[in-house]
Amino acid sequence: MNFKTYLESTGQKAVELAKAAEKAAQETGASIVVAPQFADIARVAEAVEIPVFSQHLDPIKPGNCTGHVLAESIKEAGAVGTLINHSERQLKLSEIEAIISLCREKGLVSCVCANNPAVSASIAAMHPDIVSFEPPELIGTGIAVSKAQPQIVTNTVNLVRQVNPNITILCGAGISQAEDVATALKLGTSGVLVASGIVKAKDPYMILRAFADATRQ
Amino acid sequence: MNFKTYLESTGQKAVELAKAAEKAAQETGASIVVAPQFADIARVAEAVEIPVFSQHLDPIKPGNCTGHVLAESIKEAGAVGTLINHSERQLKLSEIEAIISLCREKGLVSCVCANNPAVSASIAAMHPDIVSFEPPELIGTGIAVSKAQPQIVTNTVNLVRQVNPNITILCGAGISQAEDVATALKLGTSGVLVASGIVKAKDPYMILRAFADATRQ
Amino acid sequence: MNFKTYLESTGQKAVELAKAAEKAAQETGASIVVAPQFADIARVAEAVEIPVFSQHLDPIKPGNCTGHVLAESIKEAGAVGTLINHSERQLKLSEIEAIISLCREKGLVSCVCANNPAVSASIAAMHPDIVSFEPPELIGTGIAVSKAQPQIVTNTVNLVRQVNPNITILCGAGISQAEDVATALKLGTSGVLVASGIVKAKDPYMILRAFADATRQ
Amino acid sequence: MNFKTYLESTGQKAVELAKAAEKAAQETGASIVVAPQFADIARVAEAVEIPVFSQHLDPIKPGNCTGHVLAESIKEAGAVGTLINHSERQLKLSEIEAIISLCREKGLVSCVCANNPAVSASIAAMHPDIVSFEPPELIGTGIAVSKAQPQIVTNTVNLVRQVNPNITILCGAGISQAEDVATALKLGTSGVLVASGIVKAKDPYMILRAFADATRQ
Repeated sequence: MNFKTYLESTGQKAVELAKAAEKAAQETGASIVVAPQFADIARVAEAVEIPVFSQHLDPIKPGNCTGHVLAESIKEAGAVGTLINHSERQLKLSEIEAIISLCREKGLVSCVCANNPAVSASIAAMHPDIVSFEPPELIGTGIAVSKAQPQIVTNTVNLVRQVNPNITILCGAGISQAEDVATALKLGTSGVLVASGIVKAKDPYMILRAFADATRQ
Repeated sequence: MNFKTYLESTGQKAVELAKAAEKAAQETGASIVVAPQFADIARVAEAVEIPVFSQHLDPIKPGNCTGHVLAESIKEAGAVGTLINHSERQLKLSEIEAIISLCREKGLVSCVCANNPAVSASIAAMHPDIVSFEPPELIGTGIAVSKAQPQIVTNTVNLVRQVNPNITILCGAGISQAEDVATALKLGTSGVLVASGIVKAKDPYMILRAFADATRQ
Repeated sequence: MNFKTYLESTGQKAVELAKAAEKAAQETGASIVVAPQFADIARVAEAVEIPVFSQHLDPIKPGNCTGHVLAESIKEAGAVGTLINHSERQLKLSEIEAIISLCREKGLVSCVCANNPAVSASIAAMHPDIVSFEPPELIGTGIAVSKAQPQIVTNTVNLVRQVNPNITILCGAGISQAEDVATALKLGTSGVLVASGIVKAKDPYMILRAFADATRQ
Repeated sequence: MNFKTYLESTGQKAVELAKAAEKAAQETGASIVVAPQFADIARVAEAVEIPVFSQHLDPIKPGNCTGHVLAESIKEAGAVGTLINHSERQLKLSEIEAIISLCREKGLVSCVCANNPAVSASIAAMHPDIVSFEPPELIGTGIAVSKAQPQIVTNTVNLVRQVNPNITILCGAGISQAEDVATALKLGTSGVLVASGIVKAKDPYMILRAFADATRQ
């Protein structure tokens, strides 16, 4: 669950949202990860026991990197992994590979985002822990990738598996109904990446709970 | 005082360093600002009463900006201003102008960094609160800009004043001795930007205290 | 006149368009500059005697810069100047300043583009030969900046003149009628930056001729 | 053969260098491709019959892309392919994939550069025509990758073949002796990427001839 930079998921509200996610996870046994903004990682990680990810990480070593995001910094703040190359924060290929290596070295879970099937396969060839496929044109639309483009999801799963049989595959973009989650799992993914569908909801807990239930069927 | 991404200024050590800065500020009456990493802003701001800046800010509005730094987020975490366009995190011209406007709108202090006199004047023409001149070739060297290139500092001050008579001018790069601070002030600046000279010191408080004393002479 | 990357101004068609511009310039005495794509600079410069600009230049020295645009290369191909920081090819502030210096050193005319009044002033403070103000939201719309936002043009002229009394000021975006050109000159600019209004026209020469006439009134 | 932005391979000298390459190719039957700067593509392509590549291509369609490199433009100038993601002109992952697709659509040969074995495999998964492995730390050193790091070349070939059995594999960086070329071929590559070793040579033809001979053994 990507908190992005919504006001509804900033600061104290990030903590509340993470607690709602934790509650849904505990009640259902589903695995829910939250990815708040950098400045909120520490307080979210203190408030909940579910895994906290960063939204981005820079391929840097400690030192002269003003304004960048250091692995050691997000780790000490409580993050156990990070999103990489989200469509809203795209990176150079060599940077993605360097961040995957850095995560491996520092014990952080790497979740790399892809905008299409070929890019998904390309990412899988670098062996991150997770590849997450999200067609940018559907992000934030409420039109679920798993419903609108099931064949592209299947195609992505097949291309990725050819290159890397063991990687965890997520899909995202437009996921707003519990059935979208169930469909995504049927298509061969292990879970979904969600953001506005929950963050902007009147009652995020209710949606999260329904999504979590859908993963348990 | 820019904490950059040194391990010596990450996490719990960022808090300790900020407390040392606060102590030096309180004892001397000097104005010391600390700029920790994003993930450390909240805990540093809780621990000290001196101003806390972010090291960077993105020219974005709340919403779909995964992995970016939102003004509202750093503000809620306790930051009262931000570095902009540090030589290690350079930005497009239109982005710098957008961030300066955003800071004005959100009540954040804008401190924009420049790598040479012409760029300093260019920044001053956009009316941020502070322009900070740092020749990149001296950063981290221990060779102080105010000592090694006094004429360039004077030249910068003159060019900036022609464009903007009221802006606060800082200089930085290689500042490692108290006399470097005193010299910088004599050359017409209002203060200095420091990083490794203090962060990497065995006793940061001692150096900070000496620097703070130098500003009081 | 910016050829951008329209098919109507690529290759052989770039040569024909440049010849139409040359004809209009010769008949009216107006000064018309053409800015074709990199690969077309040489053949356009061979075909016409009016000045040819590059659409971009990189702040590099000869050597290891694969895929970048070298001053010496566009100069030998026949360019006498370059656009810099066009809204479709924006640059870091320090790069803009480095390119302006490079143009000065290599005897190339520097024309730096700005997206708003504050950015225009910022550019003027670096003393390029020309600053060109173009609000991005009007580019390609056919709604002329000089008609739709006359006050912003006047405001830009004033801000720029305070910082740099002698610089040449152009404006652009949406210029599609001869009267838009005349209005732009009345607002205090020295000319206009045009692209789609001419490139996509059925008879570019007719439009160019009308625009050139408008500058002579 | 990458001309980069050396003065020795700019303008008229680019034409002479390309002719030397053509001569070596014709005499030996070796396949030599030249990649001059954008502004030199047209005159080089007119002067020689060996294939001419661009050094870079942008993932754009015709239109509003001032300062970018359009596929149709380099094609009309005479290029039949392009380097992509050279270590001196690195691109975002999604851009690389978009350029590979664009090349396929426009009938241009795509040669994508990689900085290490994992990145090479990642590129191979996107099915360009050629992947070229060049460790950046050896570029321009005269220390040949095939001699200094034979195991990394073999490792790259193996990783790439697992993902894509049919792709053409080149290697480069520091190639300055004919034996470096022969070694590269023995390690399983189909050729080499060269630049300064030839461009900066007193007699480029002699070196090219020796390299071409080495590929024929």
